[in-house]
Formats: sequence, structure tokens, C-alpha cells
Amino acid sequence: MPENRYVHGYSTRESERLSDQAGALTALLHDDTRYPAGSQVLEAGCGIGAQTVILARNSPGAVITSVDISPESIRGAEARIRKEGITNVTFRVGDIYSLPFPPGSFDHIFVCFVLEHLADPGRALRQLRPFLKDGGTITVIEGDHGSTFFHPDNADAHEAVGCLVRLQQDIGGNALVGRELYPLLLDAGYRDVHVSPRMVYVDSSRPALVEGFTKQTFTAMVEGVRDEVLKQGLMEREAWDRGIRALYRTCEPDGVFCYTFFKATAQKYPRRTGP
Amino acid sequence: MPENRYVHGYSTRESERLSDQAGALTALLHDDTRYPAGSQVLEAGCGIGAQTVILARNSPGAVITSVDISPESIRGAEARIRKEGITNVTFRVGDIYSLPFPPGSFDHIFVCFVLEHLADPGRALRQLRPFLKDGGTITVIEGDHGSTFFHPDNADAHEAVGCLVRLQQDIGGNALVGRELYPLLLDAGYRDVHVSPRMVYVDSSRPALVEGFTKQTFTAMVEGVRDEVLKQGLMEREAWDRGIRALYRTCEPDGVFCYTFFKATAQKYPRRTGP
Repeated sequence: MPENRYVHGYSTRESERLSDQAGALTALLHDDTRYPAGSQVLEAGCGIGAQTVILARNSPGAVITSVDISPESIRGAEARIRKEGITNVTFRVGDIYSLPFPPGSFDHIFVCFVLEHLADPGRALRQLRPFLKDGGTITVIEGDHGSTFFHPDNADAHEAVGCLVRLQQDIGGNALVGRELYPLLLDAGYRDVHVSPRMVYVDSSRPALVEGFTKQTFTAMVEGVRDEVLKQGLMEREAWDRGIRALYRTCEPDGVFCYTFFKATAQKYPRRTGP
Repeated sequence: MPENRYVHGYSTRESERLSDQAGALTALLHDDTRYPAGSQVLEAGCGIGAQTVILARNSPGAVITSVDISPESIRGAEARIRKEGITNVTFRVGDIYSLPFPPGSFDHIFVCFVLEHLADPGRALRQLRPFLKDGGTITVIEGDHGSTFFHPDNADAHEAVGCLVRLQQDIGGNALVGRELYPLLLDAGYRDVHVSPRMVYVDSSRPALVEGFTKQTFTAMVEGVRDEVLKQGLMEREAWDRGIRALYRTCEPDGVFCYTFFKATAQKYPRRTGP
């Protein structure tokens, strides 16, 4: 099967979903990634550029190369970056498993919401490693749909989320990859692997997250696979609808919603101690 | 049913488990709770004093009153505190639903790993509120077994954890209470409720947590209900054993284990703004 299949599709609504997600989560996920002026940064798997904008703004002096396998996504990302007036990013179409750069081209590699869509994330990480200079770093950010829990609890809602996990698995992805970043990076030959979980905790005292994350990001993403779930008979229509209603129910004043992203950093070689 | 039933029992091994847990998690859960010298603090539900020791050390000038419904636990807590040379704690036996203090007796109330064992945690929080002075604060820390996930993933392990949740429910407790702290405190009449999730993320770069948390705290706790699970036929013996092995499997070099505690703070009245 082609490795650029993407469980969420490439529709306009999906573009908006990614844009909302980036807005609500920027601080939580990105604020501690700042690359020095002049450093060469590879963003592997930039999609439509939702994370590229944040990356480029947080490291305005870095020289960023962003690649994606989809020419359509690259066109979208270029338009977005141009519209934002950002000038430190160059785009190119490329396959994360076989990029055309000379060894040691980059000081830093950045991979965000990409591994979940790959059939072999370990191979991608191994293939990326030679592009780093000695002592260079890789940063990886991924979600984990299995980290989802909420109040009031609801079995149909968990089953609906499970359908999304299964559909992503069917096309060769892994929606539970967040929890695996430590062993994946270690196995791919990186050292000094450090993983930091970033939980999005949402209750009604945080209305921007209720709207921007629970509703417009997470529940919209689950709703996006409704037709496929019903077509394949993974859930009965009524149970599915109860599950979706239960996810919206967590947005009421007494509701709570939790989801965890994982952010990992690692080095090509261990940090040198002393001269 | 008596409200002081306790899913983990009162054995010596359970005492040791609680002691290990306190050691591994002290910094994550307690470091941001420091009460001023001279302040009157009520610890409601102190058990065998595992948290009392930390509380008293972090607020050495506070005047702490620790209560528990079990006279045996109170005796254990007193012995522990005496052994540690701590002098700012007074113990008494009492029922969290009907404590004998005059209204407004305390500046702060501290409740840690207690609500999960109560049939009506909302009533406990409402009953505690009058004991606070105006502007006094309550701090609540609880776990949430439904927040558990790990790598490699394993359905039997999830089912084993689910058995613990069910057994706790059967004796009137709620092992998923962590996620509910926001609505519980709000509904009990507190204001300025702020909830902060505290995830224990464990991979093999954190051996103290592998040993102290994944093995000796969490998996030991699940293993503790084995006989009851098999007696009630909640799981087949083989599936149970596979589940427990899968939990230990997460302690190997490529394994990952995640569990989330929730810490809430709230006020009796809103913070006053201006004079």
C-alpha cells in the first residue's frame, strides 16, 4: 500500500482542523524548541505547514528546510508561510524514508505528527539520523489516542476512539505511537533520549481548550472517520452517535477531557563531557 | 456497608507499598504544597501517615491535625511520625463525614488518596468546607486508574486494572476519581478551583520509577487483589497471569508506563481583588 495514505484525508475541513489544533496547543508543545540563529534545521514531514509556521517563528534565525511526500501539502505549506511573511523556510517534496541530502547536512531535525502515519517509524528515524551532524539533535512530537480519558466516562466514546486507532492501523499507521518514542529513538541509534509527556487537561475553567481542543480538534477528528466506520461496520450507527454525543458531553460545565502528547529529544551522539 | 472498608486491606505489605509510593512520588505530588508557619492545617484521612510525614516536613512551622477513621491506622501514623522526630502533628480518630471541629478552625485542608475510597466524596468535601476560615484553601490529590497506559500494550493488563477499579467500586469507592476533582470541588461549594494533572511517565532511563512506581507501587497494587478477582471469577487465572506479566513487561528496557495523578486546589471564597 502507498505509504502516503493519510487517515484524515486532505479536505479543507481537515486543513482547518490542523490549523485550530496548532493554535490551541502551540505553547504546550513548541515553547521549549528554539534553535540558534544560523543553525540548519530539517523539518521532516511538514504537511500543510501548520507546525512549520510555529517552528519558524520560534527560531527566526534558523535556516529551515521542510519536506513532505505530498506535493499538494507542500503547495499549501508554501502558500501559508508566504501569507505569514516568514522567509527562513525552504520547501521540497521528498520521501522521509529516502531524502536526498548529503550526510551531516543538519544541526537539528524536527518531526511533528508524522510517525503516527508511517508504516515503519523506526526505519524513518534510522534513515534520518545520518543527515544530522555529530552532536546534532532530533525532536519528535506525537499524540497517543490511547491516552484519552474523560468525565463522564462512556464506553461508546472509548469504542469510537478505538475505531480511529484501528482505521489508522489498517492503512499502516499507529495512533498509539506517542508512548513508544523512547524505545523507537533508542533502537534507531540515538542517545540521550529524553521523553516528556504533555497532557492537555481540559475542564470548563479553560474554555479555549474546550472549544479549540476537545471539540474542534479531538472530537472533530473522531467524527471525521464516521462514514468509514459505518461503511466497514466497525460500530453500529446508534452506538457511534452515542459515543460522539458522550465526547461532546465532556464539554459541559462539569465535564473533563484528557489527552497526552509526547515530546522526545535525542542526540546523534552523547553530549561530550569536558574537552 | 461500613464506609471505612479499604480495597487494599490493612496488611503489612500494603503499609510498605504505601511507603514506597510516597518515596517515589514525593517531589511530583507534594513539592508545591508549603503552608506558612503558624497556619492551622487539617489533614483529612491520613491513613498510616505516609503523606503526613511529607506534609509536615514541607511545612515545618504549620500546626497540623491529622485524622483518620481507623484507630489502627492512627496508631501506625503516630508511631511513624514519632520515629521521624516530627513534632508539629496531632492525631485523632474521626469520620471525614462528621468531624468534631468548630467552624473556621483551619486555614488549610489537605486530602490525599482519600476520596477514591469514599462512597460519597462530594459529601465529604461539602462537610469539610465549614471547617475552613474564610479565604482558606483545600488541596486534594487523587490517582485515576483509568489513566493507565503502557507499551507494549496488552488487553489482559487493561482488564486486570479494570478488575481493581470494579472491586473498589463494589465496596463503594471510585478508582477513577482523579479526573472528577474539578466538578466535585465546584459542586461542593468551593471556588477558584484549579486542577493540575501530574503524570508519572516511566521509561528505562528512570530506573527509580521503574522499580518504585511501576513495579512496587502500581503492579503490586493490582497483584494485591488477585485472590479476590479469581474468587469472584472476574477474570480467568491464565488471563490474569498474562495481564500481570504484561505489566512487568513494561519494566524492560524498551517498555513504557504512564499513570496520572490529579492535584486540585480551591478556596472557600474567591480571592478578594483590591481592598
